[in-house]
Amino acid sequence: MTGEQTINNYLDVLSSKAPVPGGGGASALAGALGTALGEMVANLTIGKKKYAEVEGEILELLEQLKQIRAEYIRLADEDARVFAPLAKAYGLPAATDEEKAYKDAVMEERLLDASLVPIGIMELTLSLLGILKVLAEKGSRMAVSDVGVAVQYARAALLGAVMNVSINTRSMKNREKAAELNAHAEQMIAEGTGQADTIYSQVLTALKF
Amino acid sequence: MTGEQTINNYLDVLSSKAPVPGGGGASALAGALGTALGEMVANLTIGKKKYAEVEGEILELLEQLKQIRAEYIRLADEDARVFAPLAKAYGLPAATDEEKAYKDAVMEERLLDASLVPIGIMELTLSLLGILKVLAEKGSRMAVSDVGVAVQYARAALLGAVMNVSINTRSMKNREKAAELNAHAEQMIAEGTGQADTIYSQVLTALKF
Repeated sequence: MTGEQTINNYLDVLSSKAPVPGGGGASALAGALGTALGEMVANLTIGKKKYAEVEGEILELLEQLKQIRAEYIRLADEDARVFAPLAKAYGLPAATDEEKAYKDAVMEERLLDASLVPIGIMELTLSLLGILKVLAEKGSRMAVSDVGVAVQYARAALLGAVMNVSINTRSMKNREKAAELNAHAEQMIAEGTGQADTIYSQVLTALKF
Repeated sequence: MTGEQTINNYLDVLSSKAPVPGGGGASALAGALGTALGEMVANLTIGKKKYAEVEGEILELLEQLKQIRAEYIRLADEDARVFAPLAKAYGLPAATDEEKAYKDAVMEERLLDASLVPIGIMELTLSLLGILKVLAEKGSRMAVSDVGVAVQYARAALLGAVMNVSINTRSMKNREKAAELNAHAEQMIAEGTGQADTIYSQVLTALKF
């Protein structure tokens, strides 16, 4: 499980040719790191007189961030979990028409499973960005640079995950479903990178005093 | 030490209001994660007949990546190490001219130390991007999406670290030194983000077959 490994162990296995973790799991981890930085900013805002007016809202966002982080870690594990059945499906025999039909059907299911994990990472990242936007505006000014780092992690999660959508959808026979997933992913990239770049600019402006 | 913690522990401490790790250490970790993904691509390229021609070059890059990863982890620890002396300097008394002069002198040193860590992260990231560029062109096609994820991590390391340069240089009395460090950082942002975006585009093109 991703969360229980030491950072050095995780990096060692990631760097090896072991099939998992790969870019998908690493994208989920980028999201978890960005979320933890968002939580830090919320924690540094709560309990400060200067920010008493927004405390209720920040407390609520903190609860959401905790759930988002747990979900990223779950998706990192899920990304590893769906890999083996997909690899196994690739290895199915396809010598006869019957074998080919069976392999196609299994592959289709496994490819869909493997696409839905990075789609989930992307959806979660849009939620994260919505919260980081509020933290950039209302969170402690002492920690605004950390919102900036969080946003860059979120952006990396998004642009890392999208490639893991397309490497799976491109092999799907159901082109309509593939096109639907790709369009959803593209729309999330447009929205999410736009939002990330806007928040980062706000942070840079806030840093120039 | 950063590397010895479990991922969940690291995320828990990062998310708390504990002074370290913060955005600086998290930026170094982003670099380490991008580097490990680069190593994975190298490891998936080495020993394959199809890539025999580039094997010598890839082996050399792999050795460099290992050193870069160790250096990122060292910088993550270093970022935490320089924080306490800086926080202590902020707390020095400044009631008399003598105290003020002493505080200014100590602050100046500590701010420089704290600026040089993210500068180091940025310099290291330019080296990483140079290697990822080669891996995007010559590494295993099976793993090209992982180069894309690595590039996004490198970009996050760069844009995360730069804010930790400016939050320290802006308090420096030696404005000439501050301007020099800021200019160096800005130049690395221009070069590094340009390179990251170019490599990512190459990866996206390679994925469309």
